[in-house]
Amino acid sequence: MGRVAEALRREVHRANLALARSGLVMGTFGNVSGVDRAAGLMAVKPSGIPYDRLKPEHIVPVSLSTGEVVGTDLRPSSDTPTHLELYRAFPSCGGIAHTHSESATALAQAGLPIRCLGTTHADHFRGDVPVTRALTRKEVASDYERNTGLVIVEAFRRKRLSPEEIAAVLVLHHGPFTWGKDAADAVENARVLEYLARMEILVRSTGGGERHRRPADFLVDKHYLRKHGKGSYYGQK
Amino acid sequence: MGRVAEALRREVHRANLALARSGLVMGTFGNVSGVDRAAGLMAVKPSGIPYDRLKPEHIVPVSLSTGEVVGTDLRPSSDTPTHLELYRAFPSCGGIAHTHSESATALAQAGLPIRCLGTTHADHFRGDVPVTRALTRKEVASDYERNTGLVIVEAFRRKRLSPEEIAAVLVLHHGPFTWGKDAADAVENARVLEYLARMEILVRSTGGGERHRRPADFLVDKHYLRKHGKGSYYGQK
Amino acid sequence: MGRVAEALRREVHRANLALARSGLVMGTFGNVSGVDRAAGLMAVKPSGIPYDRLKPEHIVPVSLSTGEVVGTDLRPSSDTPTHLELYRAFPSCGGIAHTHSESATALAQAGLPIRCLGTTHADHFRGDVPVTRALTRKEVASDYERNTGLVIVEAFRRKRLSPEEIAAVLVLHHGPFTWGKDAADAVENARVLEYLARMEILVRSTGGGERHRRPADFLVDKHYLRKHGKGSYYGQK
Amino acid sequence: MGRVAEALRREVHRANLALARSGLVMGTFGNVSGVDRAAGLMAVKPSGIPYDRLKPEHIVPVSLSTGEVVGTDLRPSSDTPTHLELYRAFPSCGGIAHTHSESATALAQAGLPIRCLGTTHADHFRGDVPVTRALTRKEVASDYERNTGLVIVEAFRRKRLSPEEIAAVLVLHHGPFTWGKDAADAVENARVLEYLARMEILVRSTGGGERHRRPADFLVDKHYLRKHGKGSYYGQK
Repeated sequence: MGRVAEALRREVHRANLALARSGLVMGTFGNVSGVDRAAGLMAVKPSGIPYDRLKPEHIVPVSLSTGEVVGTDLRPSSDTPTHLELYRAFPSCGGIAHTHSESATALAQAGLPIRCLGTTHADHFRGDVPVTRALTRKEVASDYERNTGLVIVEAFRRKRLSPEEIAAVLVLHHGPFTWGKDAADAVENARVLEYLARMEILVRSTGGGERHRRPADFLVDKHYLRKHGKGSYYGQK
Repeated sequence: MGRVAEALRREVHRANLALARSGLVMGTFGNVSGVDRAAGLMAVKPSGIPYDRLKPEHIVPVSLSTGEVVGTDLRPSSDTPTHLELYRAFPSCGGIAHTHSESATALAQAGLPIRCLGTTHADHFRGDVPVTRALTRKEVASDYERNTGLVIVEAFRRKRLSPEEIAAVLVLHHGPFTWGKDAADAVENARVLEYLARMEILVRSTGGGERHRRPADFLVDKHYLRKHGKGSYYGQK
Repeated sequence: MGRVAEALRREVHRANLALARSGLVMGTFGNVSGVDRAAGLMAVKPSGIPYDRLKPEHIVPVSLSTGEVVGTDLRPSSDTPTHLELYRAFPSCGGIAHTHSESATALAQAGLPIRCLGTTHADHFRGDVPVTRALTRKEVASDYERNTGLVIVEAFRRKRLSPEEIAAVLVLHHGPFTWGKDAADAVENARVLEYLARMEILVRSTGGGERHRRPADFLVDKHYLRKHGKGSYYGQK
Repeated sequence: MGRVAEALRREVHRANLALARSGLVMGTFGNVSGVDRAAGLMAVKPSGIPYDRLKPEHIVPVSLSTGEVVGTDLRPSSDTPTHLELYRAFPSCGGIAHTHSESATALAQAGLPIRCLGTTHADHFRGDVPVTRALTRKEVASDYERNTGLVIVEAFRRKRLSPEEIAAVLVLHHGPFTWGKDAADAVENARVLEYLARMEILVRSTGGGERHRRPADFLVDKHYLRKHGKGSYYGQK
């Protein structure tokens, strides 16, 4: 195992522990990966190992091109083929987090997007967080986890969404995936997503249904752009 | 008291403390038992003793066949006859947990099942968690706790459900019982059940009622079977 | 100050700290009192002193018959006249707790009782926890806090409820009062009440409204009576 | 930097840490400021610096009249122009807190006021906490943060509300601002506001919509006035 893989493993290990501390996962639910595109490797949580026993050497390197495990006998997360498809389709994606966090998962189960209802959302994601279509019987029967990745990519392509501007998705009847510039950023987006999902459910629980007036696009853009991109003026110089 | 009973008491004691730490119970609510079928014994939390004073020697051994307390003057949980009926009817059941956890109990009070709305549910239970029928006046008047066990068994038989595949039930107007391969596993299922119940209530609070499209059976089966049984591929070899 | 008052002060001090630790109050909200009927005294939290600075000597003794403060310059809780009326009308009441706990207060604001929807409720309260009527302009204008006590008593008399069997009330647009055999028991009932209120709101948030079938009276009685009174068989002998 | 500014910085630093501990903010969300009117200065959290790295010397002094940063190279919170307009329009305002606290923000997103539904609300705010109107495209395009302050002031003027009696507002599609006699008091009002917002959402989640009977004005006034102003009798003399 080269030094590149070791650094990636430590980063992914730290991000998995951050996920465990976040309260977004229970038991062995959830997983985080990171990628080193120059080395052609992703690294991901092993399957079924509790967070409190997780060590950097447990993190499983996987070849981006072949999907094969590199240099360990541990099995990667069963969701690894999903991660691989996202890394392949979204070139700017540097890390991926998957949780079954309560409110985002409830919305995924209900088939409801996380609507962009305000500036907290627009500070992080430039528009609604979409829900994927249902997988077909055939897509579930073989290469299920890979097909999960493919329907995520399809959702973004069909709706012409930018995975940089909306770094999150709800997989129908399953739960959220988030991504970011690295593994830590993906976890941070998972935390923000759950916060937004909780507020979406609170708004709906007031009985408003779809009635509420949505924020204007120019307000959404203002908030997204004051934090992201060239003209941003949030934070220190 | 033989060594078998002592080992069982320690296991059941540990599981009761795990239940107390889980946040699923308040005060002296709830109880966990375990069984040693070779020894013909179950062991259960004593009635009305707070978790923070509970010691292994307080755990009450009870004969599986006669229901009599063995080798202690302490009273077992008042729900003991319910546990006994479950052990008798469900041969693979190695431990039972009973809580009044908030969301599962709210659904039991509302008479609503915990529907299998997604993969988090299907990872653990292969289908809806059912609600029992109401007990009759006569069933409440005598042998109430035993009859509670019998209506649980009836719910599974009538609906042809497998207690291995769905290791949980909501007793109408009362609350959840969960079980598993041992006492610790029953507590873990109680935690998962409350998580699923919370998500069920969140889904309903979005105003969808029964409208939402349920996941296809092939998706439920896929998730249940990738974690359970012969073809499972979750976790390490 | 005699020894009786000192013992009562310490008990009430401990119960107020238990209330603060319970998470049922924020800031200086809430208050607990206790009574020594032989000494003709109640003792109550002083007004506006934060829980983390509260000492036994801050607890204010008040004459049950005259309502006058005894042996201290501190002001008692502004809700003292409410407590006095409850002690006078309910002879078995040994302690009173008042909180603005979130879910019970929300129901008080909505004017909705905490219905007896299941056995968790019936284990503690034998029937619905009632809501008082609105106070009139005149009742608010003078002796407001005393009149709050009087409408509580009126609610129990009108509906022929037993304050022993239902040791809690929601004051309309205000919040819950609970009582018990002593100050600690009143706080315990405040915790249970909030738990039941949370479940009541969860049941309602499923969209069922008043539709749900209520538990039969014989089930409610069974649970109440297996824990309370002569035939009880819960806990140790 | 004079001693006045140093004292103000320490006060605002403490209040920002209190906000972080309150659970009302996640990440770098939110900000608190304080004002020294004699010195013509406000002081505010710097933009994008995490609370756990915040030191008194990071707090940014800003001229009340010109809006210019005084004596530091750090950028103030991007919401600074909003704070400035509130200090200018509301002469009694000594501190301001801005959060994206969950329930208050959900109501801001839904465009729903926090109604005065009971005495907990009336103890702190004498009437409904209003929602601002939507900003126009032009108001968002230039001087967005200043215009946010101006629509808050407009909301109070149009509805003839007193910013002393109602020290809080919901900015539509954005979130709450609260204020008070100093920075610490503004944070305390932010905590109370979130508590009231949670209860407002709980009331709505019971399905009552706008149906519930509101408390009479004389009850609201009674509670507000027993804690505030000349005739108040809450707390110690």
